[in-house]
Amino acid sequence: MQSIKNYIEENKTRFLDELIELLKYPSVSADPVHENDVLATAEFVAQKLKDAGADKVEVCPTAGYPIVYGEKIIDPALPTVLVYGHYDVQPADPLELWKTPPFEPTIKDGKIYARGACDDKGQFYMHVKAFELMMQNNLLLCNIKFMIEGEEEVGSDNLGKFVASNKERLKADVVLISDTSMISMETPSLETGLRGLSYMEVEVVGPNRDLHSGVYGGAVANPVNILCQMIASLHDENNHITIPGFYDGVLELSEEEQKELNSAPFDLEEYKKDLDVEEVWGEKGYSTIERTGTRPTLDVNGIWGGYTGVGAKTVLPSKANAKISMRLVPGQDWEKISDLFTKHFESIAPKSVKVKVTKHHGGAPYVTPTDSVAYQAAYKAIEESFGKAPVPTRGGGSIPIVALFEEELEVKTVLMGFGLDSDNLHSPNEKYDLYNYYKGIETIPLFYKYFAQLNK
Amino acid sequence: MQSIKNYIEENKTRFLDELIELLKYPSVSADPVHENDVLATAEFVAQKLKDAGADKVEVCPTAGYPIVYGEKIIDPALPTVLVYGHYDVQPADPLELWKTPPFEPTIKDGKIYARGACDDKGQFYMHVKAFELMMQNNLLLCNIKFMIEGEEEVGSDNLGKFVASNKERLKADVVLISDTSMISMETPSLETGLRGLSYMEVEVVGPNRDLHSGVYGGAVANPVNILCQMIASLHDENNHITIPGFYDGVLELSEEEQKELNSAPFDLEEYKKDLDVEEVWGEKGYSTIERTGTRPTLDVNGIWGGYTGVGAKTVLPSKANAKISMRLVPGQDWEKISDLFTKHFESIAPKSVKVKVTKHHGGAPYVTPTDSVAYQAAYKAIEESFGKAPVPTRGGGSIPIVALFEEELEVKTVLMGFGLDSDNLHSPNEKYDLYNYYKGIETIPLFYKYFAQLNK
Repeated sequence: MQSIKNYIEENKTRFLDELIELLKYPSVSADPVHENDVLATAEFVAQKLKDAGADKVEVCPTAGYPIVYGEKIIDPALPTVLVYGHYDVQPADPLELWKTPPFEPTIKDGKIYARGACDDKGQFYMHVKAFELMMQNNLLLCNIKFMIEGEEEVGSDNLGKFVASNKERLKADVVLISDTSMISMETPSLETGLRGLSYMEVEVVGPNRDLHSGVYGGAVANPVNILCQMIASLHDENNHITIPGFYDGVLELSEEEQKELNSAPFDLEEYKKDLDVEEVWGEKGYSTIERTGTRPTLDVNGIWGGYTGVGAKTVLPSKANAKISMRLVPGQDWEKISDLFTKHFESIAPKSVKVKVTKHHGGAPYVTPTDSVAYQAAYKAIEESFGKAPVPTRGGGSIPIVALFEEELEVKTVLMGFGLDSDNLHSPNEKYDLYNYYKGIETIPLFYKYFAQLNK
Repeated sequence: MQSIKNYIEENKTRFLDELIELLKYPSVSADPVHENDVLATAEFVAQKLKDAGADKVEVCPTAGYPIVYGEKIIDPALPTVLVYGHYDVQPADPLELWKTPPFEPTIKDGKIYARGACDDKGQFYMHVKAFELMMQNNLLLCNIKFMIEGEEEVGSDNLGKFVASNKERLKADVVLISDTSMISMETPSLETGLRGLSYMEVEVVGPNRDLHSGVYGGAVANPVNILCQMIASLHDENNHITIPGFYDGVLELSEEEQKELNSAPFDLEEYKKDLDVEEVWGEKGYSTIERTGTRPTLDVNGIWGGYTGVGAKTVLPSKANAKISMRLVPGQDWEKISDLFTKHFESIAPKSVKVKVTKHHGGAPYVTPTDSVAYQAAYKAIEESFGKAPVPTRGGGSIPIVALFEEELEVKTVLMGFGLDSDNLHSPNEKYDLYNYYKGIETIPLFYKYFAQLNK
């Protein structure tokens, strides 16, 4: 509708200024030194919800970082949309690889560069602005509730409790989330599934102190060498994961699903060129799209041990550590997988070392029903604003709370993401295309329009 | 002789005070921030050589850190002993594991705790004090030359050039070094061999940037996982090293040598208890003493990659690095081994990553002839001062310059060390027993006595 386009045009600059302000907060939930920044971000978000016209806005305390809530109930008889997002961001390191400071948003070639630009500040804030737009133009045709949390990047540890104890307040007909990607602006897409996650940390301890590698080398197990052997053994020669029971219950795609999935536009040469790799890698027997969208994986996210400074130190380290996470698919229970990993990792440790396995966090995989009213509304909204029907895709990422909502609130989720895989999520120089930002603000009201219509 | 014991008794306190002063210098050659500390240490050593009575003392500049030289020629016709030592020390980290600050020497239970206490400040300084003692008591019966360098812990890069261009000045009949260990004070021993060293650094690069492990995980090679696989493949199931040609030319011990070596007092249970490991580790078919003394090894000295901070970060890192060193035995050429390693490591890299291999430094292995006059002199000196004949041992460590001396100066080396394996060389809480310190100062003049006698 023209009114939407006009309002966005008239408020373009302010919409951007507010996003810049939001991106300046270093709300890194993983790092305790940023505690006050995270808390300040919550207050900022609450204020912006109020300004946009939300009622009962509250910064709800939890055992960790607060959850910002706000709502607009225009008529209890009408359907209700629960918007979820997160105001916390990933750590910015390695800092030296950022071309511009991660918390000094910089605009270049129509893109805004900053940690959280796309994940998820840029994306959830579209909903705040779309809400303002609907309020100002009497376009809000159903009820809306906002729940913006501050611990998504560290496992949403306290969200479950909050949701369980606020079922009435959070009651809704659908959860709407913009925290995923599209194939491209030319090829809009809609996520129909997400992978689950199990994030572990391991420690391998050899001798009780760092040793001289000359005096003891060759006679005492080196925990780094042992850790490497243990990690290497977690994949076989076909890059299948070797943890017993790991694949139990994993659903293979039907030929049709497989065909549809692989029909999505994908240029392997472009993909390799963009990453500057000569060859892709992965589980034998699956395409790249299948590997990221439909197959479970195991990646070392970090490893450290021994001397990592300048020059050479001939030390046989006392211990070695690694952070290892697994992406899970429908049929896998993340808690069961965490236990299988722990049991297996302990079982393959030689007697010459001691092993400690710690669970960080996890979440269940999710598949969206494409026949639901909400999915159809999102489909039509994108079709109208992009002038092109969206391609259904399976996202590789994980939004653990999607499964939580289904369990606790008995409500389905629609993943209407406007990011791009090339937005460097979790990487240096994270960015968000301003075109996508404004396009999102334009598309969201259309979702409400169709959601109200289809619910009639 | 009584005169020796008396002089030590009279000067005990000063000998200790001077050592403490020396240990206070953080002369970490591996870390550029300590450049001035290393240079100041050289000046200190030069001054102490002068005070002890050395002539022609000079802090000789090199492309790196200077070499301190000093001499006392009492009669050109008499044999000459060249004393080698190093005033630089290993990095002190991990600092948090030190019970007392590494550069604030602390005495506890008759031991002095500080970085460099044993390796090598405490040990080379015994020679400075023994020299003073001989000068004051007219016990110096042959000529003496000192060469104390500042780059031993980083590969003695500039020593070779110095030695080659100072052959006349350094001319000697034997090189005497105290930079190794004894079995125990109850079981004095003499090193008859040392392992060589090849120290490498590797980098494995996958995608050109850190990636979101959800979006790309399972489809792009993770350099940490790949590095672990590559490192794991460097040992086979019997812990033999798999680098083609690695063992070429390695000399197996004769049954007799093997018997003599294993006859040295060694308590495996004590050894395991001291390190708090349930089982030892190593190459199949060899005893612990053989593994450390006579077999080549490969150890990861450090590894790093991805997110190593607090909490969890779901990143697929762009690269991973490791420092890997190999201990070499007679028959192995360290430069050839470095090349074999490089070639092999590059050859096992999958096409999905790029690999960079860098040589840090290295040195040749060495075996001391036990029938030489110098070895016999050391043997008798220890026998007299300890009242017990020393056990011949094969040290696991490396003193690359020993081979250099043989090559450039055509002179053999005697390794008369007074440290203990439990002195935490290269580890936190490095220490040196004051009993050993004084015992060394007492033993060294006896070496000169017998060396002069046996040369008659």
